[in-house]
Amino acid sequence: MAHQPTRDDRFSFGLWTVGWNARDPFGDATRPALDPVESVERLAELGAYGVTFHDDDLVPFGSSDAERTAIVERFKKALADTGLVVPMATTNLFTHPVFKEGALTANDRGVRRFAMRKVMRNMDLAAELGATTYVVWGGREGAEVDGAKDLRAALDRYREGIDTLAQYSEDRGYGLRFALEPKPNEPRGDIFLPTIGHAIAFINTLEHADLVGVNPEVGHEQMAGLNYTHGIAQALWQGKLFHIDLNGQHGIKFDQDLVFGHGDVLSAFATVDLLEHGGPNGGPAYDGPRHFDYKPLRTEDVKGVWESAAANMRTYLLLKERAEAFRADPEVQEALADAAVPELAQPTLGDGESYEQLLADRSAFEDFDAESAGARRGGQVRLSQLAVEHLLGAR
Amino acid sequence: MAHQPTRDDRFSFGLWTVGWNARDPFGDATRPALDPVESVERLAELGAYGVTFHDDDLVPFGSSDAERTAIVERFKKALADTGLVVPMATTNLFTHPVFKEGALTANDRGVRRFAMRKVMRNMDLAAELGATTYVVWGGREGAEVDGAKDLRAALDRYREGIDTLAQYSEDRGYGLRFALEPKPNEPRGDIFLPTIGHAIAFINTLEHADLVGVNPEVGHEQMAGLNYTHGIAQALWQGKLFHIDLNGQHGIKFDQDLVFGHGDVLSAFATVDLLEHGGPNGGPAYDGPRHFDYKPLRTEDVKGVWESAAANMRTYLLLKERAEAFRADPEVQEALADAAVPELAQPTLGDGESYEQLLADRSAFEDFDAESAGARRGGQVRLSQLAVEHLLGAR
Amino acid sequence: MAHQPTRDDRFSFGLWTVGWNARDPFGDATRPALDPVESVERLAELGAYGVTFHDDDLVPFGSSDAERTAIVERFKKALADTGLVVPMATTNLFTHPVFKEGALTANDRGVRRFAMRKVMRNMDLAAELGATTYVVWGGREGAEVDGAKDLRAALDRYREGIDTLAQYSEDRGYGLRFALEPKPNEPRGDIFLPTIGHAIAFINTLEHADLVGVNPEVGHEQMAGLNYTHGIAQALWQGKLFHIDLNGQHGIKFDQDLVFGHGDVLSAFATVDLLEHGGPNGGPAYDGPRHFDYKPLRTEDVKGVWESAAANMRTYLLLKERAEAFRADPEVQEALADAAVPELAQPTLGDGESYEQLLADRSAFEDFDAESAGARRGGQVRLSQLAVEHLLGAR
Amino acid sequence: MAHQPTRDDRFSFGLWTVGWNARDPFGDATRPALDPVESVERLAELGAYGVTFHDDDLVPFGSSDAERTAIVERFKKALADTGLVVPMATTNLFTHPVFKEGALTANDRGVRRFAMRKVMRNMDLAAELGATTYVVWGGREGAEVDGAKDLRAALDRYREGIDTLAQYSEDRGYGLRFALEPKPNEPRGDIFLPTIGHAIAFINTLEHADLVGVNPEVGHEQMAGLNYTHGIAQALWQGKLFHIDLNGQHGIKFDQDLVFGHGDVLSAFATVDLLEHGGPNGGPAYDGPRHFDYKPLRTEDVKGVWESAAANMRTYLLLKERAEAFRADPEVQEALADAAVPELAQPTLGDGESYEQLLADRSAFEDFDAESAGARRGGQVRLSQLAVEHLLGAR
Repeated sequence: MAHQPTRDDRFSFGLWTVGWNARDPFGDATRPALDPVESVERLAELGAYGVTFHDDDLVPFGSSDAERTAIVERFKKALADTGLVVPMATTNLFTHPVFKEGALTANDRGVRRFAMRKVMRNMDLAAELGATTYVVWGGREGAEVDGAKDLRAALDRYREGIDTLAQYSEDRGYGLRFALEPKPNEPRGDIFLPTIGHAIAFINTLEHADLVGVNPEVGHEQMAGLNYTHGIAQALWQGKLFHIDLNGQHGIKFDQDLVFGHGDVLSAFATVDLLEHGGPNGGPAYDGPRHFDYKPLRTEDVKGVWESAAANMRTYLLLKERAEAFRADPEVQEALADAAVPELAQPTLGDGESYEQLLADRSAFEDFDAESAGARRGGQVRLSQLAVEHLLGAR
Repeated sequence: MAHQPTRDDRFSFGLWTVGWNARDPFGDATRPALDPVESVERLAELGAYGVTFHDDDLVPFGSSDAERTAIVERFKKALADTGLVVPMATTNLFTHPVFKEGALTANDRGVRRFAMRKVMRNMDLAAELGATTYVVWGGREGAEVDGAKDLRAALDRYREGIDTLAQYSEDRGYGLRFALEPKPNEPRGDIFLPTIGHAIAFINTLEHADLVGVNPEVGHEQMAGLNYTHGIAQALWQGKLFHIDLNGQHGIKFDQDLVFGHGDVLSAFATVDLLEHGGPNGGPAYDGPRHFDYKPLRTEDVKGVWESAAANMRTYLLLKERAEAFRADPEVQEALADAAVPELAQPTLGDGESYEQLLADRSAFEDFDAESAGARRGGQVRLSQLAVEHLLGAR
Repeated sequence: MAHQPTRDDRFSFGLWTVGWNARDPFGDATRPALDPVESVERLAELGAYGVTFHDDDLVPFGSSDAERTAIVERFKKALADTGLVVPMATTNLFTHPVFKEGALTANDRGVRRFAMRKVMRNMDLAAELGATTYVVWGGREGAEVDGAKDLRAALDRYREGIDTLAQYSEDRGYGLRFALEPKPNEPRGDIFLPTIGHAIAFINTLEHADLVGVNPEVGHEQMAGLNYTHGIAQALWQGKLFHIDLNGQHGIKFDQDLVFGHGDVLSAFATVDLLEHGGPNGGPAYDGPRHFDYKPLRTEDVKGVWESAAANMRTYLLLKERAEAFRADPEVQEALADAAVPELAQPTLGDGESYEQLLADRSAFEDFDAESAGARRGGQVRLSQLAVEHLLGAR
Repeated sequence: MAHQPTRDDRFSFGLWTVGWNARDPFGDATRPALDPVESVERLAELGAYGVTFHDDDLVPFGSSDAERTAIVERFKKALADTGLVVPMATTNLFTHPVFKEGALTANDRGVRRFAMRKVMRNMDLAAELGATTYVVWGGREGAEVDGAKDLRAALDRYREGIDTLAQYSEDRGYGLRFALEPKPNEPRGDIFLPTIGHAIAFINTLEHADLVGVNPEVGHEQMAGLNYTHGIAQALWQGKLFHIDLNGQHGIKFDQDLVFGHGDVLSAFATVDLLEHGGPNGGPAYDGPRHFDYKPLRTEDVKGVWESAAANMRTYLLLKERAEAFRADPEVQEALADAAVPELAQPTLGDGESYEQLLADRSAFEDFDAESAGARRGGQVRLSQLAVEHLLGAR
């Protein structure tokens, strides 16, 4: 397999990723702002197929309508010239001070209305550019002080916001699917809908639940110590993996946004395996863009920015190759069977069996030899080692 | 307010809490096993109203039917003598080696069938003893090795299991409500349904979704660095707070099961405030048992066990008293208004307003003064300090 | 006890704390820069006794000598007018892009030399303003990529840097004591000397070890899940607690810099108890400034800035009052004795006893009743509850 | 390079690792106890060179002298038969209830004396078996309740204990070197000397500081979110890396004791690179045993135990091979130079340069172009990607 990305790999990047100027909480920018058109051109050269953006990444906050039009036209030309597509867009509801206390869930109703309008405006552009997914990261929807927020009212407003936006998309014929992006904290002390689970639970209360899924980010789940692969497996299982943000993180700390695989690479291997093969027993896998939401290290110059962009894609392809070899390895197949992994796909009750029949089955309980079953071979460490060896390209 | 608990406070304890023999991963038991009847008597004396149990807490695994009957009768007599009730029961699906690789989601189908039977058997007893809530903690449902588990099949089996159990309860007329208890890890490297959010998301896929809610434990959410009060607020908002496990934890580490309030006591204050008052804008609050799921420190002898049991209740009552004073303080009310907290209960769209009207409202966007709004007073640190001062009994 | 701070309480604040303009990794500034002179005046009014600063807090990076002189003179006048002192100063070795890869341990030798000069220059000013402590926070001394740093060479350079600076202070007669401030991560993925322990271990290798101690910050230790009170107890025990940074943090996540006590307030109670009373058995306690290194929440306006500054001091005084009551409570004294806490001050070997005598003492081993000793009363949960009740002002 | 371990690789295992019966805080043992002699034989067959033990691993607590002698003789014969050596031994000061509140730092002086005797007794055996390193893991030296421990007295007693034991070794001519093993928590809420840094800082206060170093464990440092490779680099730099415990961990949670490399494998790669090559600029590396302190997953049977033992060694050898290729790759060398990594080995001051000369060097400050230096190439992401690709065997 070649490790040179092509359009078919469906790799996409946010303008804000390569374009990050490397300002952090303790330091000033170390890189100049990038021209979005340059980013489009370079990403296309590197083999990406798509580019994504927050409204303000493309059109600076406060631009006039004329400026906006000129910027958008120039951007569209770059897309046309390079063949890059815009599979997803999103709204910046976190940089400007107006959102300091929240956006769709700000205590200040005026801020909430402004936020709604800001989203709708960029949905117009997203639809115009052909985006099919609209991401909502509520980075400022949260609190540092429990008593300063009516938590249930916040969820009411969040629901009102998302449902209104979904209705807007439907009425305008935009056909957008929304993807909520969970994060446990940072910049707020605690963010609402902190994990994949909380987001899906919330989505199920929406009038437009079918239009709304999640956009889980590797690092965000890992900031809560959660297993990212488990999380997206549940999202897939619930039909809610609408988009995905790949990057790297070294455990529970501030949001690092490292290159994909430059954090917990064993977990990244499991993630790619799931995305590409749908789990140990096969099954439908994710078919959307492989979107990188990372930040080039603040130590890097512009050359390093493009090296890091390429590194995301190359690492993904290497992991994909290793996952394919893992699945194709007869010893792996044998080890999976030995560990009874395929048996989990079998229902617990037999075909047509009722619980009354289960109750009547003495072999299931009264005569069940729990001691023997408890002494049964696990076979999991062997699978673990096989995965490590495939990851290391050692088989 | 008196700090002496009464039945009206609805405090309950698990037999496994006071009865923990203090064996830990690095050490042998430091205390003798307690007779459940003694626990019932002592808890009643201390002011609790309820006692809860895993099947094996009461009837040792492998007891004969005759032994079981004798034990249950003696326990029922103790309940009758003391007036203690059994509001909740649950199943031990984690201690015996048979569950080492899972119970309802074990790869081994025989184990899954055995687990189902074990639950059903204790549901019979739970119903007999008058329990209305049945807790399911899937402590062994998880994995250490991503590749050794078909993650989506695991969720299929989990769903099959819970739905079958719910059907059984309905058919038998037990009227039980099920409460899933999330935990991120320990004893498994990663546990399925790791947070309140994941559990509620899963529940929404059930055939019997209406019968199933959550039983969130303070320490379990805090082991993922999540805000417990936020979590139960979402559960309340989704109508899913069916039961509650109160204890203490010092952040992200092994499961400590400290006395309630002996960990993050500022968060415990917010929790009690939410449970008792339903949030800053009022609203329906939790009315179930205040259940303590803690472990007396391994350093303690039996005297310390009962001191710790009393400490849970006394701390809850002290926090309740402080939360009442907090709500009643005119300065707090003024500070809440100053921080626009009540404004969040106001819908973002006006009464009957459509998004078209919002789009037409120039004051919402075109003429909105984002700079002024961004400079607006937050007022949150004042609320934070007021909460701290009330917690400290300093106002 | 009054809760109104006075100079005798020795509360100090960094210019960068109240002066933080509330720019965070995802958002622009929400507050204007404060004039340092205004900060001095307001802090004095609120009851602080000292103010501290990074060079660039007072004199913007790149100022001319003339500008610098004017700024310093104006600042000195404000100090004289208010009576505020400057007990500590420090250097900003993290904001400017030049330090992106490190300062005293940058791979680039030119950057290291520049960093040394920048420190020496501000040491001149610190001495001129009467500071006796010079803090060194090596926020950029670290790495994201293990292979991109010669870890042992980094420690060589760190040692060279600190020893050179200490020599400079001695030769110039500045009489400064240096206090290294540990932090585990943020802004670097991993920071060198990540905890109190690592810093003291490093200090012991210095030529000028006697001149160098630590400046532990509550949140920094808690970001590693460590017990802050334990950490400063070890620093005190090693004679290395040269300065202290008080603030609040909610566990392992990004650096929150909350108001002191607005995070883990039970731990803050233990910290104040240690600082004021030197531990359960008494003993020399910390007598330096109570320095707050916090950030007013980004949600707050300037009024909230001063409310938060006052909140730090008031919370400290409330905790001090509660700690005094805790120590004075006869029941606490009784519980300490019951838990054998004072017995730990007794040496394990008797007065003049050799290990040969211990070996000959059959009561120590051969005849020792380990079972009885293992069943002995712990008495710790009672102490825990007494602490919680004193914290809550409930006794 | 062969991946079949040989004696020259110096791999060692604790008896308690393969011998763990898989009892965990929520579950009973899933495996029978192993006969130590069988463990010796199997480890020898698998290619290990050494075996280590706690006193109670070999000789059950409470054995008579006659039993003890018989057990030891049989063990010595197995060593002689297999050629396995005992490079290290240690004491179990944590399993028996007598140590519930501490061992060398228990409040109860009798417990402290008993603990000292228990250590001395096993030191006799360690010396007899030829061990040169004696590990001290103070797993019970800690607290859950800050107020229940005189923290500074605890450190006094710890110092008394270690110094007495070191004196004993010297006087008896045992020639042992002691290695303290830090851990942040579990089983105690907070353990004293929680990290490599705290332990080395403490050691520096000992009378016998030269005889005492550290035994850092991968998972223990990672439980505090610390970079293990950084930690052991500091220990090496301070001449204190006396022994090493290799295993795997998935971030901040309970102590997992996974197979080496089955957690953060990118970090494991950096660790092996440091141990084998001494850092990017070369230099003396660790030459002691590669000791695995892990636990076979509780899901495994005895076959899985030996598979997991082999997996530790094979993974180490694979990582060693990749680290060698990394160091030998000319592109890596070029990238290191490009990132100025070797420049850090150059002192900041020139040969013989005084700080006065640095002050006089206008190029260092007055004429230094900080803007250019701040825009300089970092080159770190390229090194990160090269490391990932070598780890993946992709170069």
